[in-house]
Amino acid sequence: MNKLKNIQITNPIYNVDYLNGNIKGKSIIKSIKRLKDLAGIFEDNNAFLKLKQEEIIYSVQAILPVDEGVEGGLFYGKTILEPGKVGNEYFMTKGHFHKKADRAEFYWGILGEGVLLLMDEERNCWAEKMFPGSLHYINAFIAHRTINTGDVQLSFGACWPSDAGHNYQEIIDNGFSARLIEVNGKPEFVSSQK
Amino acid sequence: MNKLKNIQITNPIYNVDYLNGNIKGKSIIKSIKRLKDLAGIFEDNNAFLKLKQEEIIYSVQAILPVDEGVEGGLFYGKTILEPGKVGNEYFMTKGHFHKKADRAEFYWGILGEGVLLLMDEERNCWAEKMFPGSLHYINAFIAHRTINTGDVQLSFGACWPSDAGHNYQEIIDNGFSARLIEVNGKPEFVSSQK
Repeated sequence: MNKLKNIQITNPIYNVDYLNGNIKGKSIIKSIKRLKDLAGIFEDNNAFLKLKQEEIIYSVQAILPVDEGVEGGLFYGKTILEPGKVGNEYFMTKGHFHKKADRAEFYWGILGEGVLLLMDEERNCWAEKMFPGSLHYINAFIAHRTINTGDVQLSFGACWPSDAGHNYQEIIDNGFSARLIEVNGKPEFVSSQK
Repeated sequence: MNKLKNIQITNPIYNVDYLNGNIKGKSIIKSIKRLKDLAGIFEDNNAFLKLKQEEIIYSVQAILPVDEGVEGGLFYGKTILEPGKVGNEYFMTKGHFHKKADRAEFYWGILGEGVLLLMDEERNCWAEKMFPGSLHYINAFIAHRTINTGDVQLSFGACWPSDAGHNYQEIIDNGFSARLIEVNGKPEFVSSQK
């Protein structure tokens, strides 16, 4: 057996902090969504316009080790969704189907509490609680949106195929068929007008 | 807005314990590898045969929400690799390429300390440290094996495409080109005879 001088045990390229989900390393992109970027997704437009349009509603960190669209690769991300409401409707992400609609995704709750809203292509909705340790499989052909129902940031992780892509337009045009609003201090689903 | 009585916020189907990586929920399979299942992968066969063949070396929990082989789905798993050595070679997993060799995978360290050994199709090896919070992207066409270099269990998580599959045979036949052995209490790579 010959000692191999050329193989070093290097530090990993990425690190994740399990207490808050923060990821560090190479090729990490960050994207921020401010209230103004979410025009049209909340029901109460008057309430929407009264809020600070520059307010950050959510921010995403993502590891993209290969180019978007490459088949067989994976992306890994973390989203922080702020607490708050537009009128009585909780802050939420835009939500999307995948562009390659048969691609699945895992989400996992890290901090805070919220709801994962899911919708199939026939517009049937259902929802799962999110909390530290919740783990969610988002099947193929299912639109997904996260909603912060708590008083603190909702932080969650995600892993998805690098060729999944995002189809935001379907949700921009038609929304989800259900909205989550606060009624007497508790989240309750109502049908969506959009 | 009509209240939707038919949408309940249900508990998530899966849960993960961030302190030890344990996963709970539906469709979770468990597989155990005992020493006898790892015949031929360690260099020192005399030392191998002197150990208890029924000893558990590693166990895997995996969430398989769709059938193996389905394109577009994802699997999520957790492995616990016991501490120990066969002669001076650390306990390790069998290691594999993916059957669909262009499929990638994420690993993340949860507990303990170890090494992720990586090898390309030209048999070039390199390695990354594993520890709680280490996050590893295993690119397409890269064989991967984990090695426990510590005194406690090495626990790590994984997410991979449901159509990746496993090609164990290449490693059974030819091994990795490097082995990690303990020299003066420290891990050191040596070239493999196999």
